[in-house]
Amino acid sequence: MTTYTAPLKDMQFLLREIANIDAISQLPGYEEATSDVVDAIIEEAGKFASGVLAPLNWSGDCEGAKFANKQVTVPAGFKEAYKQFAESGWVGLSCGTEHGGQGMPKLVSAAVCEMWRSSNISFALCPMLTVGAVEALELVGSPELKETYLPKMISGEWTGTMNLTEPQAGSDLAAVRSRAEPQADGSYRIFGQKIFITYGDHDMTDNTIHLVLARLPDAPEGVKGISLFVVPKFMVKADGSLGERNDAYCVSIEHKLGIHASPTCVMAYGDNGGAIGYLVGKANEGLKYMFVMMNAARFFVGVEGLGLAEVAYQKAATFARERVQGRAIEGSAGNVPIIKHPDIRRMLMEMRSRIEAMRAISFWSAGMDDIGRKHPDAQTRKTHTAIAEFMTPIVKAWLTETGNEMTYLGVQIHGGMGFIEETGAAQYMRDARITTIYEGTTGIQALDLIGRKTSRDGGATLKAVLAMMQETVGDLGKLSGADFARMAAALKDGIASASKAGTFVAEGLAKTPREVAAGAVPFLRVMGLLCGGWLLAKSAIAAHAKVVAGDTDPFYPAKITTARYFADHAMTGISGFAAEVVAGAESALALDDAMF
Amino acid sequence: MTTYTAPLKDMQFLLREIANIDAISQLPGYEEATSDVVDAIIEEAGKFASGVLAPLNWSGDCEGAKFANKQVTVPAGFKEAYKQFAESGWVGLSCGTEHGGQGMPKLVSAAVCEMWRSSNISFALCPMLTVGAVEALELVGSPELKETYLPKMISGEWTGTMNLTEPQAGSDLAAVRSRAEPQADGSYRIFGQKIFITYGDHDMTDNTIHLVLARLPDAPEGVKGISLFVVPKFMVKADGSLGERNDAYCVSIEHKLGIHASPTCVMAYGDNGGAIGYLVGKANEGLKYMFVMMNAARFFVGVEGLGLAEVAYQKAATFARERVQGRAIEGSAGNVPIIKHPDIRRMLMEMRSRIEAMRAISFWSAGMDDIGRKHPDAQTRKTHTAIAEFMTPIVKAWLTETGNEMTYLGVQIHGGMGFIEETGAAQYMRDARITTIYEGTTGIQALDLIGRKTSRDGGATLKAVLAMMQETVGDLGKLSGADFARMAAALKDGIASASKAGTFVAEGLAKTPREVAAGAVPFLRVMGLLCGGWLLAKSAIAAHAKVVAGDTDPFYPAKITTARYFADHAMTGISGFAAEVVAGAESALALDDAMF
Repeated sequence: MTTYTAPLKDMQFLLREIANIDAISQLPGYEEATSDVVDAIIEEAGKFASGVLAPLNWSGDCEGAKFANKQVTVPAGFKEAYKQFAESGWVGLSCGTEHGGQGMPKLVSAAVCEMWRSSNISFALCPMLTVGAVEALELVGSPELKETYLPKMISGEWTGTMNLTEPQAGSDLAAVRSRAEPQADGSYRIFGQKIFITYGDHDMTDNTIHLVLARLPDAPEGVKGISLFVVPKFMVKADGSLGERNDAYCVSIEHKLGIHASPTCVMAYGDNGGAIGYLVGKANEGLKYMFVMMNAARFFVGVEGLGLAEVAYQKAATFARERVQGRAIEGSAGNVPIIKHPDIRRMLMEMRSRIEAMRAISFWSAGMDDIGRKHPDAQTRKTHTAIAEFMTPIVKAWLTETGNEMTYLGVQIHGGMGFIEETGAAQYMRDARITTIYEGTTGIQALDLIGRKTSRDGGATLKAVLAMMQETVGDLGKLSGADFARMAAALKDGIASASKAGTFVAEGLAKTPREVAAGAVPFLRVMGLLCGGWLLAKSAIAAHAKVVAGDTDPFYPAKITTARYFADHAMTGISGFAAEVVAGAESALALDDAMF
Repeated sequence: MTTYTAPLKDMQFLLREIANIDAISQLPGYEEATSDVVDAIIEEAGKFASGVLAPLNWSGDCEGAKFANKQVTVPAGFKEAYKQFAESGWVGLSCGTEHGGQGMPKLVSAAVCEMWRSSNISFALCPMLTVGAVEALELVGSPELKETYLPKMISGEWTGTMNLTEPQAGSDLAAVRSRAEPQADGSYRIFGQKIFITYGDHDMTDNTIHLVLARLPDAPEGVKGISLFVVPKFMVKADGSLGERNDAYCVSIEHKLGIHASPTCVMAYGDNGGAIGYLVGKANEGLKYMFVMMNAARFFVGVEGLGLAEVAYQKAATFARERVQGRAIEGSAGNVPIIKHPDIRRMLMEMRSRIEAMRAISFWSAGMDDIGRKHPDAQTRKTHTAIAEFMTPIVKAWLTETGNEMTYLGVQIHGGMGFIEETGAAQYMRDARITTIYEGTTGIQALDLIGRKTSRDGGATLKAVLAMMQETVGDLGKLSGADFARMAAALKDGIASASKAGTFVAEGLAKTPREVAAGAVPFLRVMGLLCGGWLLAKSAIAAHAKVVAGDTDPFYPAKITTARYFADHAMTGISGFAAEVVAGAESALALDDAMF
């Protein structure tokens, strides 16, 4: 049902022109990530996504994960695909080389992980969670824990999970109640129930390694009393072989709107005497470590929005070219493919331009993160990390909200067929719906953006990003033609709107937190649209240079048109969202609770 | 799962203050529709919706319509509920009194039908289609056909269907291939397959009356060769009793994203010798008649968007008041209900204000239609009908697009619980997804708006509506306070944007059809937001008058706040959409088909 072709050309363009892979491959530790090597990696990933994962996407949705006899089984084909995925080394692509990973930059993961998400998001969730768990162990695990777990998690032999929330807690981890009782041997017994645990149980591997938030007996209340524990499904003996079944069981799985093939588990720890676990890092610092994992996961959830939009676009474009229906509005001898109808074209351009904007944001942000991690100069690391962190909520929330809108359009282009499940367009929309919710809702991302990312540094990082954009306005001004003039005007107006809204946020949050918070999501929309328009404009400038240099590939003029479309049709929304930020709080907050 | 309380207060307010029920009940034929009677009707309808239909909404979704042995069965409880619905006289509420209907204005239907759609859209589709078929028969059926079919359809003893599209046709009815062979006795034998036939078969009533588009042997090609036929499931004898089974069968039902309880049938006519049918009206004029039915249906599909948004809002507001999670951003002693969080408030206000705007549009447009039908003065009928027809694509498309956005927000407010099917929020989103597609997609509505409704009369109707809005700007200017000033400014700016975009459309469509059509949907968005903002502003003025008159009901200040919110947060988008209309075509249409 799902067919998918990796957008290699756009990825290769962005790697070079926007994310600067050549500079990143100069950084210590990333020397192997030359553009040639990365090209080869993403080509292989594209083949795997199209050939192995995409064919299981629809069948996985229909069959769904199943729960019976205290055990989850994944849909047909998933186990074999996972084995192949692990054996090809895809799990550990970005993991440290010390324990068997390939140590590739995040930029490469951004490209490759988009493909997993386009071709089979339900499948992709499993390695994403594993890598999150690996990162936490790499960061603060003891040498013993690292030795025991990392090689097999990085190789994909075992998978990992993140156990955060509980029925009463939702997004509020301060409310976590699971408890950990210290044992004489230095281990702990874990007791508690966790919900919404992705791949909390499955039959693709021999073992599953749970990272679990719980409270020690003497822990303070709230977020400062939460510790992180490793809890394996099967105990691991000293020789690395598997021992007894641990007291960590899936007790049910959820009946969800989408991602049916991905089991969302209710996990019971310690119903039979206590699940044996091991403290990761320091006591009471668990939430901090979880946030490290979660920030990484947030970026890749953003990429889910992009990946689903891309595959929905491919399906819709194919349908629009093939489906013959109605005459052309300007007159035609017979019926025409619906792609000839202006409104279908508009929707396809809407999808195309938003997708290219999303991808540019994803790649550029990942590149910032890589420089922030590996650059030899501390100040450069600091400024780039600040930008990468500033972008995280934008990537998470704007890409997923936009992903939902685009999969919605994908259904619309199919007309009545889009509503029929067998067409497959609706699955992308269903699958996308969780992406604005898990790993922190759009509202939570927006609070992160206005608080930790904008207000905390007095708007300094925002200003640095806007200054980069201002440079691009100058660059656009050096080029002739209506396309670049329009982009320059849209970008200039957008910067002015964002600057005004950003000042309002940075200066107002401490004084009038409710009023500023009411505009958090509109502010995030301003930034998403503006960052997207900016990076598309930069892309257009780079594409123009190729055209001037005599490259006749139609990809380049199309990139310019797509950027122009975004200026004409997407950036037109920025001033309205900015007005909501600076002047919308009063009416948003005025009514009494009882009136709703 | 679904709980629903009819929004009687807002409806009663709109009936009186926006749609002017008192004037409508003065019109010949609507004398019984006094405000007291209408109040009683909508109260009864509200009870029926909450007590009978809402309890079957979730169970109907889970069970779904079933097809086996050439027969469709509806979910448990539907048959009994339908019987009760028919016996209460709800089917024929707006049908002519000549054959047993109650002859109520469309305005009353708008209110009542919203409730059916909120409480159980899958159920509501069956009587909606019946009423559409009734209207076609009332309009052009022979006295014999009317006598045979109308009384039992209007009483609800039998149901009706609309059989338009075929696999190769989609929205393009010119491509219809079903054929009708004249018989010696004046009847016809119908042959062909029809798809997407809502309630094409079911077990709630003894008979189903199909209205079917087909071609006579000598019919011209295209839309001018399509005739309309009545094809009963069971033949009707001279004494009115049922005779033989007709050769009209459901052969399969679709597996859909939503409206699971509503069977969407593939219908086979004439597989066993020909389905006996009777010509309705004149030969080759079938499409014209169908459009009469379809225009009526389009209005009520728009109301589906509103109804689903309303019930999604009620569910989300209840959840937001009850779900305790996280501290208040300004600080709080303990955790607070999530309605205290500003972004949740913003989403609830977004839902509330868009819903009230949608309902105002629905009621006002229905009232225009009623005056257009029954006013004694021909010129008044003409101008009001023109406005009602102008509003039809706006009601259909803007209310359904907005309904989708609002059910999406309903899921979002529920967080992770929203993605779990048992919560019920996701069902509204799934059910809403068809509303922008069937009875003409949003793109088709937008073409209707720019073509038949705007360009054809040189923009005269648009200008008449904008002139009414301009009067409201004047009225707002007479009131003091920031709320009214803001509404006036937003309305004034919106009128200017719409005027500019409307002129572009009216003057440009004939000369540059592709360029204008590329902006059709953005133009429809301009008009939806502007009409909504206008009618909310009018509502606010009326509410203010109540406050000034000493009415202390908090409904009135809340109405003013809600209108202000819409001006601050929704009308802010108008200028951007208008810019897309007037300056967006070039980039929308520039790329070659092969580039997608």
